[in-house]
Amino acid sequence: MTDSFIPVAQLRRFVGAALEKLDLPAGDAATVAEFMTEAEAQGSDGHGVIRLAPYARRIRAGGIKLRPDIRIVKEKPGMALLDGDNGMGHLVMKRAAQIAIEKARNCGIAWVGARLSNHAGPASLYARMPMLRDMIGMYFAVGNANHLPPWGGLDMLLSTNPIAVAVPAGSEPPVVLDMATTVAAYGKVKAKAQRGEQMPVGWMIDRQGQPLTDPRRAEEGFLMPIGGYKGYGLSLIVGLLAGTLNGAAMGSEVVDFNHDDTSVTNTGQAIVAIDPDAFGDIGEFKARVDTLVREMRGSERMAGVERIWLPGEQSHARRVASERDGLALPAALRQQLDAVALDLGIPSLQAS
Amino acid sequence: MTDSFIPVAQLRRFVGAALEKLDLPAGDAATVAEFMTEAEAQGSDGHGVIRLAPYARRIRAGGIKLRPDIRIVKEKPGMALLDGDNGMGHLVMKRAAQIAIEKARNCGIAWVGARLSNHAGPASLYARMPMLRDMIGMYFAVGNANHLPPWGGLDMLLSTNPIAVAVPAGSEPPVVLDMATTVAAYGKVKAKAQRGEQMPVGWMIDRQGQPLTDPRRAEEGFLMPIGGYKGYGLSLIVGLLAGTLNGAAMGSEVVDFNHDDTSVTNTGQAIVAIDPDAFGDIGEFKARVDTLVREMRGSERMAGVERIWLPGEQSHARRVASERDGLALPAALRQQLDAVALDLGIPSLQAS
Repeated sequence: MTDSFIPVAQLRRFVGAALEKLDLPAGDAATVAEFMTEAEAQGSDGHGVIRLAPYARRIRAGGIKLRPDIRIVKEKPGMALLDGDNGMGHLVMKRAAQIAIEKARNCGIAWVGARLSNHAGPASLYARMPMLRDMIGMYFAVGNANHLPPWGGLDMLLSTNPIAVAVPAGSEPPVVLDMATTVAAYGKVKAKAQRGEQMPVGWMIDRQGQPLTDPRRAEEGFLMPIGGYKGYGLSLIVGLLAGTLNGAAMGSEVVDFNHDDTSVTNTGQAIVAIDPDAFGDIGEFKARVDTLVREMRGSERMAGVERIWLPGEQSHARRVASERDGLALPAALRQQLDAVALDLGIPSLQAS
Repeated sequence: MTDSFIPVAQLRRFVGAALEKLDLPAGDAATVAEFMTEAEAQGSDGHGVIRLAPYARRIRAGGIKLRPDIRIVKEKPGMALLDGDNGMGHLVMKRAAQIAIEKARNCGIAWVGARLSNHAGPASLYARMPMLRDMIGMYFAVGNANHLPPWGGLDMLLSTNPIAVAVPAGSEPPVVLDMATTVAAYGKVKAKAQRGEQMPVGWMIDRQGQPLTDPRRAEEGFLMPIGGYKGYGLSLIVGLLAGTLNGAAMGSEVVDFNHDDTSVTNTGQAIVAIDPDAFGDIGEFKARVDTLVREMRGSERMAGVERIWLPGEQSHARRVASERDGLALPAALRQQLDAVALDLGIPSLQAS
């Protein structure tokens, strides 16, 4: 159970090789591997390479189109609607972000929605794309399995529908919020199960409303929304914006990709790019963000609190550390990756 | 302490007369009275006519410009930045919503930010404006008093920074989310204090982290963000979008309008309009929203739950009931309005 450190580039090569072996075109395999490794590097363990095995399963079952025709089906100066043609979500969202950035240069803001997409990994990866071009990025998605009933209900009609917003700063790390509208994302539940750990009270309840803390019993209960009925409302709204608006799956239409490898998920996502340069000077904007970041960090602290973190600051530190020191993958995850390698007949991660 | 019912139009006349007496131009007084009464009618008691007395105080102290030059200072096809010239926030936001709707017709989406605005009442009023034109409306604002420290901190650098999203439906009521990023809005704390009621555990904590339930002691503690650190992140992001992006006040720059009637608040707000007709057919979109609404409402319920509500459904019912039956204003509020009338030398609400 020891963790040795794997260089990020090595993990990326391994994931890319696996995806190529699964018959993704080389360029697309590299793109997906890039995003998946980036997720791992920033500590988004629930959405990182833990997903390689289920992606492989779905691809082999024919549940993903390997040579999709990702195309714009609706367009105005400030928006586009993409048909992802059931391709890997990472490819659809990369394209969506590129279009949003380009359109926002002209309009000041752009909103690009997608339907017929698939799971694309952590929300922050796509909100970060405009941010890396000095824009504010926002991302909304319909999760790929319903784990949340409407407030007071028992039918799981909603997913963890995440929101991410990334705001460029000057000399400070960017402010990057990436949150499920539930107290915990389901990927975190899966990661707890894989590590053999218990969940804290408040993550899930059972059908009687009692706390559920054993992640292996996760399917017997539901996730709790943040702020009670408010989180239910947020999850529903995110679903309306990322799903319903795009003609993508929402509510009972959502395909549970944990139990169904073949049905088209018709996943809906949306990316927004806002150009702060349209509102004033980008340099001044970034300086104001820096000031605000320092003000938050410099706040007097409650007893026992060592440091005040900004959203995304810990992920940023993880990225830096991962690039420098490599990645410490849990033993169970490494075993899973070894099994994928064996199954696909490619060199193991260690040998990549 | 009996509540008699006041017709909505009568309350609107009274508020309008009060604002005219305070020297707002007649048209502007009518606009502000319209929004304030609408807030009351939909049950947003923390942001309704309870605000008339503090508005009057601030106007008399010279803290609001009565004949502002509300103007566009930055513009692109999909965005505008308004300078509110320290006018009443309702006027600035009405203008912002109108511009957003117009621009969204061409671009598919538009984002209009404002600086040098002021408190404008409940967020949902402005998210509803695009919704009434068959668009999705979103609204973000920086609250006018900081009641929330960064997560783990003690310095109140953040406000309740609300989010509202309004989505048009077909034959169902629209889905309208209007939420503070704190468990309770500060206006609700004020309303509890006025009614002499205690707050539930979870709304506020004191500086030692202990629950604070007496609303008269509210200034000794802070509001709790929804979902812990997630709500802190949301409040910060909303502030960046509605405040920092527009060059409006954020963090320590926020003026506490409960204790300062003269400083320019430089309130920041933002409105987004998204045209579903750009993404497909508006009729089909509204039908999909209807289906989703019915699906949520029809969910099996937990024991003891009588009905599942959609966001905004109760406010919608309140609007309908208020228009039909009039408004039941709490005795303390009526006394406050009587005092305003006496002070301004205008006929009382009863006589309006």
